[in-house]
Amino acid sequence: MGSEEEEALSFHKENTGKISIKSKVSVKNKDDLSLAYTPGVAIPCLRIQEDKDAAYTYTNKGNSVAVVSDGSAVLGLGDIGEVASLPVMEGKCVLFKEFGGVDAYPILISTRNVEEAVSVIKNISAGFGGINLEDIAAPRCFEIEEKLIDELDIPVFHDDQHGSAIAVLAAFINSLKLASKKIGDVKVVVVGAGAAGIATSKLLIKSGVKKLLLIDSKGIVSTQRSDINKYKKEIAEAMNITQSGGLVDAIKGADVFIGLSKPGLLTSEMIKSMNDKPIVFAMANPTPEIMPDVAKEAGVYIMATGRSDFENQINNSLVFPGLFRGALNVRASAVNEEMKLAAANALAGAVDELSVDKILPGQFDSGVAEAVTDAVKKKAVETGVARKP
Amino acid sequence: MGSEEEEALSFHKENTGKISIKSKVSVKNKDDLSLAYTPGVAIPCLRIQEDKDAAYTYTNKGNSVAVVSDGSAVLGLGDIGEVASLPVMEGKCVLFKEFGGVDAYPILISTRNVEEAVSVIKNISAGFGGINLEDIAAPRCFEIEEKLIDELDIPVFHDDQHGSAIAVLAAFINSLKLASKKIGDVKVVVVGAGAAGIATSKLLIKSGVKKLLLIDSKGIVSTQRSDINKYKKEIAEAMNITQSGGLVDAIKGADVFIGLSKPGLLTSEMIKSMNDKPIVFAMANPTPEIMPDVAKEAGVYIMATGRSDFENQINNSLVFPGLFRGALNVRASAVNEEMKLAAANALAGAVDELSVDKILPGQFDSGVAEAVTDAVKKKAVETGVARKP
Repeated sequence: MGSEEEEALSFHKENTGKISIKSKVSVKNKDDLSLAYTPGVAIPCLRIQEDKDAAYTYTNKGNSVAVVSDGSAVLGLGDIGEVASLPVMEGKCVLFKEFGGVDAYPILISTRNVEEAVSVIKNISAGFGGINLEDIAAPRCFEIEEKLIDELDIPVFHDDQHGSAIAVLAAFINSLKLASKKIGDVKVVVVGAGAAGIATSKLLIKSGVKKLLLIDSKGIVSTQRSDINKYKKEIAEAMNITQSGGLVDAIKGADVFIGLSKPGLLTSEMIKSMNDKPIVFAMANPTPEIMPDVAKEAGVYIMATGRSDFENQINNSLVFPGLFRGALNVRASAVNEEMKLAAANALAGAVDELSVDKILPGQFDSGVAEAVTDAVKKKAVETGVARKP
Repeated sequence: MGSEEEEALSFHKENTGKISIKSKVSVKNKDDLSLAYTPGVAIPCLRIQEDKDAAYTYTNKGNSVAVVSDGSAVLGLGDIGEVASLPVMEGKCVLFKEFGGVDAYPILISTRNVEEAVSVIKNISAGFGGINLEDIAAPRCFEIEEKLIDELDIPVFHDDQHGSAIAVLAAFINSLKLASKKIGDVKVVVVGAGAAGIATSKLLIKSGVKKLLLIDSKGIVSTQRSDINKYKKEIAEAMNITQSGGLVDAIKGADVFIGLSKPGLLTSEMIKSMNDKPIVFAMANPTPEIMPDVAKEAGVYIMATGRSDFENQINNSLVFPGLFRGALNVRASAVNEEMKLAAANALAGAVDELSVDKILPGQFDSGVAEAVTDAVKKKAVETGVARKP
């Protein structure tokens, strides 16, 4: 075992995990107890019975988010099961608190059946102000999210899809700015048709991309293929793709490569076949589709990865704390597309001095979550999903 | 609105509820982040994938309890719905933390169907070290608990049943000691055949009571009645009760009255019809079956209620924090009858100077939760349900 592995284990063992419950009130004598518990607690209960929204005043509901996972698509680890995903979910809750002041709690679900998962999540949602779906495999994650959005009146947000998509869009906006290219002109290749790949493609199209090729493990996703799910098919149809072939064909003349797939898929030759000023986001975790030094030698103009130890990290932790903070602050009933686009633009605008080596703000730069929060709040109000002004 | 009501509301409003999430680790720079989240977090994940029990080492699972309610039988308020029960559930979580160091989190469930409730709770149980069922109406609570105990390998404990039963048994043991009466000789009348009444009757019988009459809203629960559920029937059969009539008939010659029912059911005349040294636990909330001053005038020997503003409060908050602490400490797979009896005896033994005015320790007396914890741990090991020595 390497010393980094040992450090990671002892870090998690030291406090037996990463989150705990904190009492916001002091209970040191009978008087405290009679307010926090019986008989005093009956008064807020009755208020909420009269008006359910009073729960936002007298309980922590409005600041609570369930981080729900079945452990089927965890980080770069894949299907490790729900219990083994708990360190990731606790980590997510730490980031929610640290960057957004949100009280998030991990909920591990033990079913892989879509209907059952929806029933479980729906039936425990009443105590939460929002639901963050996490590390659930595609295409199940799409179905679960769609059904929950239909049935619940609190934000339901699958972070692997939309957190990633928003972070990529922010990086994309700034990269095009630096390269002096227009969103309606560029050709984009997205590799990886899982949760993040599908959602990123959809958000890029929504924001004005006219030429986009999605690539899955069998090659270019086209309207001619019969072996693709409806989510991939929608993208092929939206872009009217009939082309067949693989990445080597797709990448020719492309302006932007977006990798949400596997290590080592992108070669120097492929970069050399791209259009002028090639932009490469190689976000496979932990090993990118191409290493930055190799990509730079091949003449890349902007290079980004998902890793914190290289420049230009594209990471959804720049998104979800501020986004949920904003949605919770205005009691949004949903996170709609307009709010996602606003979050991406706010994130893109939060870079201090934009350069090819700094296309996004860092996680510890001040004001990042706040910028996302403000944009999301504003757009929630504008689009009528805010239940509190 | 009275000033007490205003105080209770502002207490709950001040901090927007009573609990929040606390990060146990510091995340102030990229290095912290790479340990708490990606890539470091992958290492404990893989350990847990290899061995699920490693979740007790690297996550907070082993200290986590879900406080689950459907809001169908809340305090003295009845069926107020799951959202309105949240102040109680948060209060419970505060007591768990304050008295037991347990990280409890409220889970509100929105179904009243037994099978669905079991499916929901089972499917979210993987992240918790124990399940505390709370304020779920009888007889549904019995069925839900039974099924969950069968299916899960973590403690499942319906506090309204067993927390109450254990606290009553502790008070009962000390009261008989003071009255110099033997458990096998006394006649006990339990009024109220809901969750607490049924569980208390069962635990008293288990601990040696030979004469016990249970009374529901229709009168004495006897083997002759056809209008009773199987839980009531079991008690009538165990005690071989054929007697009919109401409380006025049942109470004649009784040594102990245990009220878990409604305000005002017990009269002075009834107390006068009891055996020598009558013992009365009038625990209806917030107004007892008889007020202490009235009972004393009628010649009661020991008088107890559920209220903190009278002497001799019998309250399950003396039980559940220490009991779960003990069960979690040894990774118990269940809370069995022996552990409940041990908890009651430990609680009875934790009174400093036993007297008719102090039959139980106070909630803020030192060493109470610890005494319960130690007894529960020891008994879990002895009975083979401890998975950690």
